[in-house]
Amino acid sequence: MEYTKPLLRLIEYFQKLPSIGPKTAQRLALYILKMEKPEVESFANAMVEAKTTIKYCSNCYNISSNDPCEICTNTSRSRETICVVAEAKDLFAIEKTNEYSGQYHVLQGLISPMDGIGPDDIKIKELLKRVHENEIKEVILALNPSVEGEATALYLSKLLKPFGIKVSRISYGIPIGSELEYTDELTLIRAIETRQEV
Amino acid sequence: MEYTKPLLRLIEYFQKLPSIGPKTAQRLALYILKMEKPEVESFANAMVEAKTTIKYCSNCYNISSNDPCEICTNTSRSRETICVVAEAKDLFAIEKTNEYSGQYHVLQGLISPMDGIGPDDIKIKELLKRVHENEIKEVILALNPSVEGEATALYLSKLLKPFGIKVSRISYGIPIGSELEYTDELTLIRAIETRQEV
Repeated sequence: MEYTKPLLRLIEYFQKLPSIGPKTAQRLALYILKMEKPEVESFANAMVEAKTTIKYCSNCYNISSNDPCEICTNTSRSRETICVVAEAKDLFAIEKTNEYSGQYHVLQGLISPMDGIGPDDIKIKELLKRVHENEIKEVILALNPSVEGEATALYLSKLLKPFGIKVSRISYGIPIGSELEYTDELTLIRAIETRQEV
Repeated sequence: MEYTKPLLRLIEYFQKLPSIGPKTAQRLALYILKMEKPEVESFANAMVEAKTTIKYCSNCYNISSNDPCEICTNTSRSRETICVVAEAKDLFAIEKTNEYSGQYHVLQGLISPMDGIGPDDIKIKELLKRVHENEIKEVILALNPSVEGEATALYLSKLLKPFGIKVSRISYGIPIGSELEYTDELTLIRAIETRQEV
C-alpha cells in the first residue's frame, strides 16, 4: 500500500526544505492532516503572504517589508562601518547581541564553485558600489568558518584592498563556556594562530 | 531589529510542527522566501489539498482518499487478524515489510493521561465493535515500547480478553545488526524476559 497522491505531494514539498529528510517530511505531512482545516489554511496563507509581501532592501539586501530597510534608514546607526554577512539570519544573530550599530551588507550566499555559485551570483558588485560611493572606514567580514566562507572572505579582502579602508574578520576560536579538551583540532589551530597579545 | 510581521507569522507556524524548534523554523521560513513564487503557491496548495481531500477510513481509521480504504477493500488480504497501530505511519512501516497481509486498526493516538488523552479519545470503541461484529481470530498489538504504548497495550488486552480471541504483541528486543554490548538496559531486560525456546 502506498500513500495517497495528495499526501505524497505534500511529503515531497516538505522534503525540499533544508534539513528535512524523508522521515521528518512524512511526520510533518501527517501532522498537517491532523491540524484543523482553518489552521492549515492560514498556515498556507502565511506562506504565500510572506513570499509576496517581503522584499529585499535594495541597499543592503536584508529582508524587509520596506525598501530601504529599517537598518539602512536608521539615522542613529553609524554609516562608517559595513558588516558583511552571508544570509539575513546571520544579520539577525548579530543584531541580537546589541553590540553592533553600523550598517550591514547581506551577500545572499557564499562563493561555492561546487554548487555553481560564483562571485557574480551573490551581492559582491553591490557591496563594492556601496564602498565606492559612501565614506566607509571599515568593512567587517562576518562569514561562517567554512570552506565557502573562507573563500568568499579571501576574495572580498582582495577586492576591498584598493579602497584603502580597514578590512577585518570576526574571530574564530574556542566558544565561551566550552573546554579546550573538547575543542576540535581545526578550531584549536585557528585559536592559536589568531592569538592576541594581552 | 525584529523580523517583519509576515515572516514572524510564518516562523510561528513552522514552529508548531513536531520536532521543529525556533532555529529550524527560522531556517525553513527564510528558505520559503528564497523559493520561486509559483513553487511557494503550489506548496501552500498541496497543504490545503491534502487536508481537504484526505479522509480517514471509517472502518480501520487509516488515511485514505477512499472510504473504506484500499486495505479494507482488498479481498486478497486475510480478514481474521487485526494489527493495531497508534498512527498511520506505523501502518506504512509494517506494510513496507510485505510480511503482513491481514487487516489494520489505527488508534489515532495512545492513551496518555499526561497529555489528557483518555481511552475515549482514541479509536478503542471502534476496535471493540469490529472485533465484536467480525470473525476475528487474532489481534496483534503493534504499539511503541513507550509508557503510553505499554499502558494502551495493557488496557486493550484487558478489554479484548472477554472475546476469547488470541491477543499478541510484537516482540521488543535487540535490533538485528546491533550488538548486545551497546544495547540499553531496558531493551536487554525486555529481551531476556521475552526469550523464546529454540
